[in-house]
Order: sequence, then structure tokens, then C-alpha cells
Amino acid sequence: MSVPLFPQAVIARKRDGHALTPAEIASFVQGVARGEWADYQATALLMAVYLRGMTPAEIACLTENMMHSGSVADLSGVPGTKVDKHSTGGVGDKVSLILAPLVAACGVPVPMMSGRSLGHTGGTLDKLESIPGFRVGLSLSEYAAGLRKLGVSMIGQTAELAPADRKLYALRDVTATVESIPLICASIMSKKLAEGIDALVLDVKYGRGAFLPEKSRARELASAMVGIGRSMGKPTRALLTSMDQPLGRAVGNATEVVESIEALKGRGPADLMEVTYALGVHMLLLGRATADPADARRRLETAIADGRALQRFRELVAAQGGDASVVDDYSRLPAAALKEPIPAPSSGWVADVDPMAIAQAALQLGAGRVNTAAKIDHSVGFTGIRKVGERVAAGEPLCIVHASSRSSADSVAKSVAGAFRISPGPASPLPLIGELIE
Amino acid sequence: MSVPLFPQAVIARKRDGHALTPAEIASFVQGVARGEWADYQATALLMAVYLRGMTPAEIACLTENMMHSGSVADLSGVPGTKVDKHSTGGVGDKVSLILAPLVAACGVPVPMMSGRSLGHTGGTLDKLESIPGFRVGLSLSEYAAGLRKLGVSMIGQTAELAPADRKLYALRDVTATVESIPLICASIMSKKLAEGIDALVLDVKYGRGAFLPEKSRARELASAMVGIGRSMGKPTRALLTSMDQPLGRAVGNATEVVESIEALKGRGPADLMEVTYALGVHMLLLGRATADPADARRRLETAIADGRALQRFRELVAAQGGDASVVDDYSRLPAAALKEPIPAPSSGWVADVDPMAIAQAALQLGAGRVNTAAKIDHSVGFTGIRKVGERVAAGEPLCIVHASSRSSADSVAKSVAGAFRISPGPASPLPLIGELIE
Repeated sequence: MSVPLFPQAVIARKRDGHALTPAEIASFVQGVARGEWADYQATALLMAVYLRGMTPAEIACLTENMMHSGSVADLSGVPGTKVDKHSTGGVGDKVSLILAPLVAACGVPVPMMSGRSLGHTGGTLDKLESIPGFRVGLSLSEYAAGLRKLGVSMIGQTAELAPADRKLYALRDVTATVESIPLICASIMSKKLAEGIDALVLDVKYGRGAFLPEKSRARELASAMVGIGRSMGKPTRALLTSMDQPLGRAVGNATEVVESIEALKGRGPADLMEVTYALGVHMLLLGRATADPADARRRLETAIADGRALQRFRELVAAQGGDASVVDDYSRLPAAALKEPIPAPSSGWVADVDPMAIAQAALQLGAGRVNTAAKIDHSVGFTGIRKVGERVAAGEPLCIVHASSRSSADSVAKSVAGAFRISPGPASPLPLIGELIE
Repeated sequence: MSVPLFPQAVIARKRDGHALTPAEIASFVQGVARGEWADYQATALLMAVYLRGMTPAEIACLTENMMHSGSVADLSGVPGTKVDKHSTGGVGDKVSLILAPLVAACGVPVPMMSGRSLGHTGGTLDKLESIPGFRVGLSLSEYAAGLRKLGVSMIGQTAELAPADRKLYALRDVTATVESIPLICASIMSKKLAEGIDALVLDVKYGRGAFLPEKSRARELASAMVGIGRSMGKPTRALLTSMDQPLGRAVGNATEVVESIEALKGRGPADLMEVTYALGVHMLLLGRATADPADARRRLETAIADGRALQRFRELVAAQGGDASVVDDYSRLPAAALKEPIPAPSSGWVADVDPMAIAQAALQLGAGRVNTAAKIDHSVGFTGIRKVGERVAAGEPLCIVHASSRSSADSVAKSVAGAFRISPGPASPLPLIGELIE
């Protein structure tokens, strides 16, 4: 005889610090998806999980139940080993826009489902939508067809995939239960596994501008996700990368699209290319394009140098309804009314650029969302951000603010200037790439 | 400039183990009462409070906000020091039915708001409603008028009083966040303080049949409630009493009304009278009827002996629309179709009566509620329950089951028999009255 699992009994067990059984976890996830658990019961359990934690076995079980709460994309008709990349999110992180066409151009199919901007982190979908006409809302069959044709598709999470995660994430967002390693891990991995991937490379950020600033916590999350991938038969590697200053020199939406196209043209900032190549190497290795990391790196650099990566991006934009001529004419992208330089107050070396201060200012300019219902201004943000270790002269711009009005620019000028620390003596560039977890 | 308090920011602070500020607590309680906090945010905070606790200052602030979430009864028109009694609930606890008219007969006004049965604990309101016509749903003005006229009113919590508590309690009940000392304390004290009392005596149960079985936890709750009462200027005392066997010999609704009337006639079981007198003494002391505990005890015993307490009960029943002739004719109360003795399997001494087993059986017979929507059968329950320390002969009844049918009686017979443990040698009666906390 099966005993009915009352939500309050499941909640009480986690509240008291016990590991939940597979049946209890299934009743929670299915109950949430089917509306048998009330939202107020789900959030009580989420808080208990936040404070009590979960064992690796519980996390794996939670992930699997969330993955199977909806459809799992069938990409068996697409030849090759399909590899996605996922980042835990940072400031100025436009790596996906460069990496997806680049890796596809090297022969490894990239099925990529991304998210939207929320709070201080940008969203790949919002950046892509800066391109006039670009459609991220493809159906699962359009997604598979695009992937078969071009080796790359970049879309948003569809309603069919991991609906339990969508519901739980919305609840976590308003109940201070986001920053929980078991919950983050299950949320990311359930979606990625539902995409139909064969392998996965994770960019787990640490540092002030990351979701989990402490490196030890980032490592813990990375290990948990790698373990889940392995247990589901999907080879997964995670690279820890630093988020102690914005990545690249641009923050925003259209501003980041321009920087990404520049990167595909071989003119990307060093830190952005370093992260892109480091992740790309592991995608080519997992995608079986080559078994040699040095060869993988050469292939990536060559695909940039000979224009194949840029060409693949152009085709991707056109295939998803976007105006591919933006690649040659940036004036077709949304442009801000005002571009205002922030002058360096003194001469010296850039010793610090606080990514959270830049992100908050971008949010205030309208580049991000305070809540999921908010509208985004694709044109605003920052360009020309000076990097830690660079020399500046007094009066030279530390960055350029792209704003919709004078008052908007003025409202962030002080906090943006305050994000930069200039030191009278040389400052070392920050370490960028941390350890690999596999 | 006042900074808006987002629910998630308040939740995060408690999640991280901080003490909430008065402004944060006010935003929570008012937000819940006004619907500005979603239920799923309230329950996330409730779980965080359950796991992180609250300081005495936080509990006092929570109580005060919950008390002021609705009306506070104005009993200033009623002369005398008005004293209520509240029990944390147990099995067979019908003390309120005896104590309220008894203390009123001794000259101390008793404004009493009680609850309904839920789960394993009985409810004073359900017991009173066994009496044909008895109305517990008086308005606040009827309540005050009854109190002025008779010195006693026994009603249910009205919709006007502490609405935030009612909402929070309903959420706690389904999210495994009931057994939290700060939340229990604030829930009880906010309602009691909103009743318009001048002083309060608390019966805090410990033992297997209590809400908080561990004596140390019961003591902690008692101390917290006494502290709140004091901080609000309402003298409060708490008596710890044991709930390791049912109180008295009857469990149910009409069955407990009969036992209560018998007690008012001077024929109550010893343990029930002991708890009633112990609490009554403190009510008379706080109500300033006398300053001498021995004198208080004598006054209570005299009011039973000379029939004044019974007469006051009769008047109370009539004043609230009930059939007062039940006092002389128990056949006017709902009666069960079947009365079935449970025979002792062997001769010896009663060494144990498990209150939870008796409560569960009563619930199964229909005497209680599995959930707030369930209906109650006022006629069913138990009488003649033998007490720990009493001698029994094999075949003698351990108790009488009052059931609506043969199948219902049979369904509990085994578990009821199993609730009793008979020892071949003498067993001591259990200690009943624990320490006083003031």
C-alpha cells in the first residue's frame, strides 16, 4: 500500500535535517508541476532546503525529476556530439554570443538555450534581441532544424522544457532562496539535460560580480553540477573563472553585441577571448573534434582568423529572422541618445573596477530588469571600460556611459566613477582562469 | 527617506540568522494582513523563523504587531480585573468549561476566547457546541455585555481580532511550521492580548500528549509568553502541567461536557480538579479576589460545594442561547448509538495510558478534525478511562468507547486497548503539576 505523502510531512522531514527519499522528492516536483502542492508549501520546503542542504543523491534525484517535469528535446536526428556551454552569470559576460558560432564553425553542434537578464546579471536572450528581428522564441522543432542546418541554435527556454524549474525559479526569486547550491544545481542541470545535449561545459564564476562570490562555494556548485552530469551519462566539465571586474570592455545589450561581433572579427579584448578560448577548448574536446587541447585552441583561433566563425554568426542571425547586416553596420543596432565619457580623476594605474557597481549602474540606466515584468532599453550601457592593470592619464575616459538622457547619465556618473580605483603605482592584472573541475 | 522593505530582503535577513528590526517585523505582519506579502513569501519567512529562531525582543514585536492587525476588544466598561486562562492543549482537557464559571462565581470576570479542535487536541468551542443551541459566535459587543452581566463569556475568536494570526496559523498548519516557540508564543499572546484582558494564566502542557512534549521546550515557551505578557503590562503566569495521560476520565465533546458538569457538581476526577484548582488559584490572585493562595483555594472549593459555580455555568449556557436543562438531564446532549467497554486483558495496575493513542482513536471515531473543513460528531469519544496507578481486574472495562456504529467501535478497539499498559505490580500515579513560571 502506498502511503500518501502530505506536503507538510515532506517539509517537516527536510526541516528536521533528514535526506528526502526519491518518493518524497518526486512528490514535491510533480506536486509543484501539477499544482497539487500550493506555492506556499513549495517555498517553505525551498527555505528548508536552503538552510538544511541536500546530499548529492538528493540533488541528482531533484534534477532528474525537474528535467522530466516536461519534454526532453530529441536531438537524435542531429549528427555529432552536441555540446552546450552554460555560465552562472556575470557582468559583461557575452561569451555565448561568440562561442556558439565559433564552436559550431569548428564542427561541434551547439544547442544553446539561454536566459534573460535579471538583477545584476545580463541575459544572452536580451543581448540577441538587440539585433532587429532576431527571434529567440523558436519551437523545439525549429530549434532542432536550425541546429541540423547550421550546427547552432540559440533560443530561450520553451514552455515545454522543465516547467517545474520555471515555476520554482520564479518562487525562489521572490523568497530569498536563490543562492542555494542544491537548488541552483538542479535548476541549471535540469534545463541543460532537457535540451538534448550530449555533453556540457560550465563556466562557474566566482568573485564580487558572481552569483556565489566565494571561490569555495563556486567550487562546491561546480562539483555538484559535474557530478549530476556524470550521473546522467552526460560528460560535464566546469571551469572556475574570475568575476572581479567586468568581462571585456562593454556592458549592456547592443553594446555587448558590438563587442561580440568585434571579437568574431578578431578584435576582442584579451580577457574576453581568454575565457572564450578556454571554454571552447573543452567544448571541442568533449565534442570529439580533437583529443589534443593545443590543437583545439589552434582550431578556434583559426576559425576566428579566417572569418568562418563570423560567417556562422551571420548565418545564425539570418536563420533566426535577424538583420544580418548589423555585422557590417553597427548603426543598425539600437543606439543611445547620449554617450558620455567618465574622466579619470587622476593619473595612474587602474587598480580595481567593481563589477557590482557597474552592474547596478547598468540596471539603473535601463539595461537590465529589476523584476521579470520590467522592460529593457537595449541601447544603454557602457563601452570602453578600462581594465585592471592598465595605465590611465587624468581626464582620460575610464569608460563611456550610453544613456537615454542627460538626467539618466548624470544619475549614474558618480557611482560609475566610484567603481574605478586608480592607484599611483602599477597594479597587476587580475588572474582570470581558475581550476578545471571534471 | 524611508526605504521600502521588499519581502525578499526581510526573508533573507532572517534566513541569514539576523534579528529582524521592528520595521521589518511590522512590514511582514502588515504585509500579510493587507495581502502585500504573498502567502509563498510568508511561509518562506515562517520556515526561516522556525529554523533560525527569534530573540525575546523580536517575539514581543511580532506579538504586538499581530495583536494590532485587527481590533482590540475594549472591556473598560466591565468592572474588575479581567483574567483569562489559556491552555496549550491536551487530550481530555476540559478545564476551561469548569474554570470559567467557577472563577466568575468567585468574583473575577473571565473573558474567554477559545479555539476549535484540530488534529489530536480537542477544542473548547466544539465541546460547548455539544449543548443544543449554545452560540459561540457572539459579536464583540455581545461578548462584552455577557461579561458585564454574568462575569463570564465564552466565545470563538472573531474575525475582527488578530486577523494576521488567523492567516499565519492557517499557513503554518500546512507548511510544518507550527511547532516553533516564537510563532506559538506570538500566536497565543496576540489573541489573548486582543481580547481585552488585564491578566492571564497559562496552562503549558508537556509530555507525550502535548504540543511540545519536552519539558524544557514547554518551559521555554512558558517563559517567552510570560515575558511578552509582562512587557505589554498584563501580569501573566504559566503553570507547567503534565499531559502524559488523558486529563480526567472522558475524551470527546458531549462526553467531556458531562464530565465538566459533574465536576461543577463536586464529582470531578481528582486530576481534573487538581489542574482546575491550581490554575484557578492564580486567576483569583491575579484578579485580586484575595492575596492568599490558601484562601483562593478555599474560595474555589466553596463555590463548587455550595453550587454557585454550577449555577453560573447554567446562567452562562442560557445567556448564550443554550439549553441549560442539560445540566440536570444529560440525555439532552447528543448520545452515541453504541457504548462498548474495552476489557482489561489481565489483572494488575494501570501503568500507562498513552494520550496520543486515545486522541488518535477519538479522531478516528469522529470527535475531532483532520483538517479545518472536517465535520465533528459531538456524541462520540470515551468515558470511564482508568487512570495510571489504579488497580483493575481482568475483564473490567479500561474505558467505554462511544461510537456511531459497530464498525466504527471495532475499528478503534485494538488501538484503544493498546493504549493501556497493565503491570502486575503497583504503579505510582503520575506527577501532574509542574513548576510555576512568573
